Amino acid sequence: MDAGTRIEQALNGAVARAETASAPPKLAAALRYAVFPGGARVRPQLCLAVARACGDDTPAMSDSAAAAIELLHCASLVHDDLPCFDDADLRRGKPTVHAAYGEALGVLAGDALIVMAFECLALAGAAMPQRLPALTATIARSVGAPNGLVAGQAWESEPDPDLGQYQRAKTGALFVAASVAGAVSAGADPGPWRCLGDRLGEAYQVADDLRDALCTPEELGKPAGQDEALGRPTAVAEFGLEGACARLQHLLDEAVESIPDAPGATELQQLVLLQAKRLAPKRLAPASVA
Amino acid sequence: MDAGTRIEQALNGAVARAETASAPPKLAAALRYAVFPGGARVRPQLCLAVARACGDDTPAMSDSAAAAIELLHCASLVHDDLPCFDDADLRRGKPTVHAAYGEALGVLAGDALIVMAFECLALAGAAMPQRLPALTATIARSVGAPNGLVAGQAWESEPDPDLGQYQRAKTGALFVAASVAGAVSAGADPGPWRCLGDRLGEAYQVADDLRDALCTPEELGKPAGQDEALGRPTAVAEFGLEGACARLQHLLDEAVESIPDAPGATELQQLVLLQAKRLAPKRLAPASVA
Repeated sequence: MDAGTRIEQALNGAVARAETASAPPKLAAALRYAVFPGGARVRPQLCLAVARACGDDTPAMSDSAAAAIELLHCASLVHDDLPCFDDADLRRGKPTVHAAYGEALGVLAGDALIVMAFECLALAGAAMPQRLPALTATIARSVGAPNGLVAGQAWESEPDPDLGQYQRAKTGALFVAASVAGAVSAGADPGPWRCLGDRLGEAYQVADDLRDALCTPEELGKPAGQDEALGRPTAVAEFGLEGACARLQHLLDEAVESIPDAPGATELQQLVLLQAKRLAPKRLAPASVA
Repeated sequence: MDAGTRIEQALNGAVARAETASAPPKLAAALRYAVFPGGARVRPQLCLAVARACGDDTPAMSDSAAAAIELLHCASLVHDDLPCFDDADLRRGKPTVHAAYGEALGVLAGDALIVMAFECLALAGAAMPQRLPALTATIARSVGAPNGLVAGQAWESEPDPDLGQYQRAKTGALFVAASVAGAVSAGADPGPWRCLGDRLGEAYQVADDLRDALCTPEELGKPAGQDEALGRPTAVAEFGLEGACARLQHLLDEAVESIPDAPGATELQQLVLLQAKRLAPKRLAPASVA
């Protein structure tokens, strides 16, 4: 089964568990709405690609790790769109969760997705409990305080945050977790895989900054120019457009070079190259990626 | 070490992990503010009391289960107080988290507390991984969709919810999890302990409804009469004041009777009786509890 199908099946299994007859109907609907249809599922793809390169001896474990990471990403989007943050009405070309279901259900859907991610890990962990503590702790650290995704969002409430620290927390941490969790879920040493997640995460954030600065709302499926409007620290604000493009190219090169010599290494390099093409705003697409 | 001290130490350990030099300072402060000083810590007390009655052979595990449950409870209070839910300015006699730190940090603090709860379980689980899957799944189910705390809050967005279903999800589920997690963290069969959590949880909710209807804001440390003002389904609305009092008494009797014959049974009965005294609004205190 290809990675994309595995990810959608794992996500569907998790969301379906919340759709029993005794579930509050609007919450159940909001959860499915928040998770499907997805974006590129970059983080779970990375997780499964690393798991595959590490032998992937327990696919139920890597599937759950991938799904948990994507559920946490979806949760962060739902909360990030709330009126007290970006106050965004559109996401992936459709109304945001709170725009469609109201603010209370926006908060609750995000909460439920966070819980669902850890439930997903626990259910798969029954088959291989000795891997569950490290896997859960890795993923929790990448989204919590002091250095995970939530901390990254919290830096937006601080005066003059450090750009690197902010982006490592808000975006980088979950990419690092995706690569580390891929290895841990396959019973492998995660050390050699951290750098890949780290560089891809930063590349993804720089590309996001570039797209926000350069694309139209139609191209983005959400409002453009939000970073500048909200005075957020971004790579474009710090390095300028050209500097940010050069940085993106450099990070993608480093990501490819960091891939350890493993059975699935070529597949992984291709995944990075594919992401590279997808990431760069069309009018600035790098001529080549090493 | 007494249970109260164990709970505060475990909570402090979890919150302190979010207070590193690289943490966003306002988020770190908001997390401590949300957890300390606490209320009666009823749920973690129940968890540790059941663990003790089951032998409590791995206190690090039961401490973490107790702390995780309290962190999830604190998270629910922080989010429940937000403008899109209760819009409450006061909690435990001081400004609510969003009143003190702003709405964005209110949302983020709740999110970080949820994540912290599962991180806490994972860290303790390294010592006894085979208990971690059931423990994590139990606690996750009790706070997530379709039947946990978040689902309970979501019933408030549905027309004409069933009172029993609403209260079992919003309050009962976490009490059941506290008793079940106490047993699971001690390696015991949780089956005989479910009823205790279930009855205590419902008693707690009925008492809360009574206090909201009868107490002054000064006595509550938060606004009174909120349930009626917000048109929420409550035991007082359904059974009247006297009916709700009778129901509270009956539930507490059932809770005491449900306690299995175990080494710590007497201590547990005393805990229930103590809660019974604490729960009943003073002007309606039941003359005796069986």
